[in-house]
Amino acid sequence: MSNSVARPISFSAERPEEVQVIDQRALPHELKLVPLRSVRDVETAIRDMWVRGAPLIGAVAGFGAYFAVREQAQDSGNSLDESIARLRETRPTAVNLSWALEYVLSRISDVVDSGERIEKARAAAEEIVEIEIDSCRSIGDFGLAYLQAEHGLYPRSEPWNFLTHCNAGALACIEYGTATAPIYAAHAAGIPVHVWVDETRPRNQGARLTAWELVQRGIPHTLISDNAAGHVMQRGLVDFVIVGTDRTTASGDVANKIGTYQKALAARDSDIPFFVAAPSSSVDWSIEDGVREIPIEERNSDEVRKIRGRTEGGEIAEVLLTCAETSAKNFAFDVTPARLITALMTERGVCSPEGLRSLFPEHVA
Amino acid sequence: MSNSVARPISFSAERPEEVQVIDQRALPHELKLVPLRSVRDVETAIRDMWVRGAPLIGAVAGFGAYFAVREQAQDSGNSLDESIARLRETRPTAVNLSWALEYVLSRISDVVDSGERIEKARAAAEEIVEIEIDSCRSIGDFGLAYLQAEHGLYPRSEPWNFLTHCNAGALACIEYGTATAPIYAAHAAGIPVHVWVDETRPRNQGARLTAWELVQRGIPHTLISDNAAGHVMQRGLVDFVIVGTDRTTASGDVANKIGTYQKALAARDSDIPFFVAAPSSSVDWSIEDGVREIPIEERNSDEVRKIRGRTEGGEIAEVLLTCAETSAKNFAFDVTPARLITALMTERGVCSPEGLRSLFPEHVA
Repeated sequence: MSNSVARPISFSAERPEEVQVIDQRALPHELKLVPLRSVRDVETAIRDMWVRGAPLIGAVAGFGAYFAVREQAQDSGNSLDESIARLRETRPTAVNLSWALEYVLSRISDVVDSGERIEKARAAAEEIVEIEIDSCRSIGDFGLAYLQAEHGLYPRSEPWNFLTHCNAGALACIEYGTATAPIYAAHAAGIPVHVWVDETRPRNQGARLTAWELVQRGIPHTLISDNAAGHVMQRGLVDFVIVGTDRTTASGDVANKIGTYQKALAARDSDIPFFVAAPSSSVDWSIEDGVREIPIEERNSDEVRKIRGRTEGGEIAEVLLTCAETSAKNFAFDVTPARLITALMTERGVCSPEGLRSLFPEHVA
Repeated sequence: MSNSVARPISFSAERPEEVQVIDQRALPHELKLVPLRSVRDVETAIRDMWVRGAPLIGAVAGFGAYFAVREQAQDSGNSLDESIARLRETRPTAVNLSWALEYVLSRISDVVDSGERIEKARAAAEEIVEIEIDSCRSIGDFGLAYLQAEHGLYPRSEPWNFLTHCNAGALACIEYGTATAPIYAAHAAGIPVHVWVDETRPRNQGARLTAWELVQRGIPHTLISDNAAGHVMQRGLVDFVIVGTDRTTASGDVANKIGTYQKALAARDSDIPFFVAAPSSSVDWSIEDGVREIPIEERNSDEVRKIRGRTEGGEIAEVLLTCAETSAKNFAFDVTPARLITALMTERGVCSPEGLRSLFPEHVA
């Protein structure tokens, strides 16, 4: 299924000096592959959102840590600690970033030989990609089994109607996606599905990325403005809401793309199950209260005031939506409290938010 | 205060053949005044949203009815009934439209002389404008008094933080606006105010119109994406939410711009008062259950897929946000159930949704 779709991150033994990513800013108008070859390249790619989505940020950061180890060995003048600190600061909310950096560092902490350090760091970065792919596959399998058991109406003549926000698809999560994994698994199993795609202002990851992914895979979908999500739920047009997560607390609060919280409120008001696809790499076991403890990134307000698209003449243009004097604020994430979440879909199974620790007993404090 | 701000509708005895409106599609980049001179002009202006906002739609429709009477008298071949029916179909959700058409027709129903019919229809159309201005002024006065009484913290050193969705300002409601009336009244009374302005996709009435209005009046404000409204409420950055209404049921359900329902849910979850500024011209006394009974307009999906703005070179351009294959749906309104509304602000005072009939006893069934 996914073989025909370009991976958002790729690498080969033949070109160990680089990792190749899709510059997602150019989608859906252009599929642009760019190589990253240094810590500096990785910093730019994460901070400026050439790559985005928590698992992919982690995977690319893993290669950033590998580059940091290599640059240190090459006496480039960059200290490993400084490089890791710079990478960590590129995006403050997604916890996968820190997790991936630690993962690579842990593999080289007692290795002295510089050639061996480089080799082990590289292997660790590749492992992260495999871990995320495996997690997503498991989320899809467990998620689909859960929906089939709970939904109770399968097989139906009508499609299963999903609603998702932002892009927690293959573009964010390497191959199956997190939130999309159960949808792709259902589609692969021959279950008719339809996906309501939230536009996801201000950066339109739904309109640009999720809709594009669904076109690539031939999955029926309908784009709506973020404002319409509550309405389609109220009118009974949605069976399940599934979203991703950038940071999950140990008690099941979820920081995800701005607007997720409003979808969760709407799902609750219309009694629609609201699921979060949460690989354990997204869990910050050190915190409980998401509203108080998760730092919310504020990005440049021009991301709200301006937008890019394709003109009728085929050019990509950025246009100003407001008058020059209007100021804006750009909160990139919000926190959905665990009380609004029906279940978390993890690589070890589906659980209630408060049941997260029982699926991952190694993290019980 | 408002004298310096262009009115969205204007007319003069010197030019009885026309009514002049702001073509709001060009804002905030250009202030474009256009004359309407026929039923056909009015149909286009309402359907294509040169004018929008329930009270303004009603006011312009009133002039449409006047043109219909005039065209009938001039033997143009257009029957009055057909013209009125065409006007009624331009926008299905706002009830002011029907109300205004009925208002004009009621004034000429027993008048035979065609010159007198034209004169009375014209006078009725002008009255509608005065009625809406008076209603908005009263909503501002009653609304401010209510907020001062209820808020209990006045005077404070911090500003009063409002959040509004769409544009229920002077551009929608002729001079004071409905939702903005209490805000403008507070500002005029020297109370420091700050307004969080929802962008209001897909047609960006918040980003384009409300923000522009607030710039014109020198009122501090911050634009946010629609997705961020829940977050700013959850973080305690909002004291009051005030929105307008396109159709209010007798039991206080409110159809308003798509996304209003999600703001009401967020306000409830954070225990923030949620007000609807509802002149009685917006009330459909014939229905009770908004979710079941109010028709929700679906507009062209290109309003979701494309957006207009100003390029860096200063040109106005429309850009496609999605790939060509993505289809979209464009629900223009949603229904906020009365249970989520703290109070309605009307021209006769502030009341609970269920108390609406007691303020307007002439409509008790």
